[in-house]
Amino acid sequence: MKQQPLLITTGEPAGIGMDVVLLLAAEDKLQDFARPIWVLAEHEAMSARADELVAAGVLKNRPTWQTIAAPMDIDEFARQMTDQTTADKKVDNENGNSPDAFTLLEVNCGAPVVAGRIDINNAIMVARQLEIAHQLAVRGIVAAIVTGPLQKSALIDANIKLLDGTMFSGHTEFFMQKSGCDKVVMMLANQAMKVALVTTHVPLKEVPNVVTKDNVRQTVQIVLDEMREKFGIEQPRILVCGLNPHAGEGGHLGVEEIEIINPVLHEFIAKGVNISEAMPADTLFTSQHLKNCDAVIAMYHDQGLPVLKSHGFGDTVNLTLGLPYIRTSVDHGTALDLAGKGGASASSLYQALVMANEMADKA
Amino acid sequence: MKQQPLLITTGEPAGIGMDVVLLLAAEDKLQDFARPIWVLAEHEAMSARADELVAAGVLKNRPTWQTIAAPMDIDEFARQMTDQTTADKKVDNENGNSPDAFTLLEVNCGAPVVAGRIDINNAIMVARQLEIAHQLAVRGIVAAIVTGPLQKSALIDANIKLLDGTMFSGHTEFFMQKSGCDKVVMMLANQAMKVALVTTHVPLKEVPNVVTKDNVRQTVQIVLDEMREKFGIEQPRILVCGLNPHAGEGGHLGVEEIEIINPVLHEFIAKGVNISEAMPADTLFTSQHLKNCDAVIAMYHDQGLPVLKSHGFGDTVNLTLGLPYIRTSVDHGTALDLAGKGGASASSLYQALVMANEMADKA
Repeated sequence: MKQQPLLITTGEPAGIGMDVVLLLAAEDKLQDFARPIWVLAEHEAMSARADELVAAGVLKNRPTWQTIAAPMDIDEFARQMTDQTTADKKVDNENGNSPDAFTLLEVNCGAPVVAGRIDINNAIMVARQLEIAHQLAVRGIVAAIVTGPLQKSALIDANIKLLDGTMFSGHTEFFMQKSGCDKVVMMLANQAMKVALVTTHVPLKEVPNVVTKDNVRQTVQIVLDEMREKFGIEQPRILVCGLNPHAGEGGHLGVEEIEIINPVLHEFIAKGVNISEAMPADTLFTSQHLKNCDAVIAMYHDQGLPVLKSHGFGDTVNLTLGLPYIRTSVDHGTALDLAGKGGASASSLYQALVMANEMADKA
Repeated sequence: MKQQPLLITTGEPAGIGMDVVLLLAAEDKLQDFARPIWVLAEHEAMSARADELVAAGVLKNRPTWQTIAAPMDIDEFARQMTDQTTADKKVDNENGNSPDAFTLLEVNCGAPVVAGRIDINNAIMVARQLEIAHQLAVRGIVAAIVTGPLQKSALIDANIKLLDGTMFSGHTEFFMQKSGCDKVVMMLANQAMKVALVTTHVPLKEVPNVVTKDNVRQTVQIVLDEMREKFGIEQPRILVCGLNPHAGEGGHLGVEEIEIINPVLHEFIAKGVNISEAMPADTLFTSQHLKNCDAVIAMYHDQGLPVLKSHGFGDTVNLTLGLPYIRTSVDHGTALDLAGKGGASASSLYQALVMANEMADKA
């Protein structure tokens, strides 16, 4: 069976996105995957970063890679590339030579890259990575997208906008709009738990306005569908947080559970879905509940993610459910202060590759 | 030195408040404290609950206790009680007899107590426990109040109101109003971390309105004062969550960090206090940050408590900082389905007693 590549976007070039790719490459960890690894980055910046990490004593050996220009014509590119790169990997392994650790698809920066220093002239290069990744994934040329960290503020300051004219607000929203999805679901996962969010990157004061019946219903449906299709769990057991403290405590601490959330959950319960009513978040996230649960749905970012990441030990993976392709992501930021210097951990990228690979094998 | 008692309010009589007292008493755990243990409850209900737990095979031996009427005249009561009860404990121990496990201060119920079944005719009895506890603590007759769980909805349905005419909304708010405090701070603590909240039991949509400069400033000041006075930490290291996801990400995901929270934190930093700026909650609650931190301040209930309780393993204690007396509390609810049947864990009550006792010894 032909193994389609896993595609990594390195994201913000001033951050640690390239560093963590180089760390895995130097430890031969990218060889753990039968699939080829493609990496979107600028060759010169990657090369300079490798030199910096060698100079800093972080890399013992300098990994090698094959560089090709990122495609302007995606469809032509598809015909040229998939056979060639999968073949490369196979031949290298059979000869016992140390193969190139990855294939770098070059996207040029707008300004020289300085580790740790954001330059908004490079924001368009970051957005271009996402655009290419989407085009390759939606055509099935790559099996999955694995995204490194970007600096949202840099894209916003550079006035990068989405198709509908709204300001760039994150990877997830970008891929959603590009794919024409009305709704996708951000899920974070690690060994301790899987948490999906009804709302993601919105100011807290906007959250109650965005927790609508449609939003809750679509979120539950996408989580159900994807737990079945991408995780192979036929009857997923799902626990749902309320919006308010104590899940509103019978309406005394807020009415959204009574008016919005529980009526939607009752629709699913009536259909035989194994899902809870709205539960107090500080009760739900305890071992007695989590041990009998395949996924948690939280209403907003800081209700679900602090608890998940506190148990993550660096292995948390960000998944986007509901897209027409597989997308996983590291759970860390650009860590500008660590770029080029060492101290960054590549374990989140590794886990994101592992999960993307597993999901691709099931798809 | 005379050891003043620790006072337990058993709270909702249909819940597990009495069960957990009986469990500790039967295991002689209440004897771990040099201080006498006083318990507010109805004698008949406590006796019936003990019988139920013996019948259920949960209690091996039926603990004994001394019952006296709860005081109508607190000051007269003070003169009678403190010497007598502390003397009792001492004499029992010297004779080697099995002493009464606790002294029950009787507060009568308005209706027969049925384990697991809320009767709003008993709501006034629950409120009366809190009233008596406050009166005893504010006079220094007891060293600390340790509160068991109540059912807020029962008190609200019974139309129990606070001094200012607002609806009952929780233990913390009750003691605050009774003490004439403008502001107290709810803190939860376990072995993993201590988390204080700027806002507590308010609907999520009200939270942004309540996170004011005054509220943040008062919360920080109370946490600082109490970490010094009640925990003996002269230079506490405090980390503070932002209100918005990613702490607003430079204003792109909300402006409260820039306009409200950070200006207040800068006031404290300028005075040499070891306190952070507003941090993303999903970064703050990881071991690398928590290991160098004495207390966390979260902006609202479900930002701080799910993560804390997920690491609690049943030993989480609720503290009220800023009251004129020590108050700790269990972190669990009434667990109506477990009352009289077994399955309830008394470890949270035990930890609440341990912390109250330690704080009382330092005061």
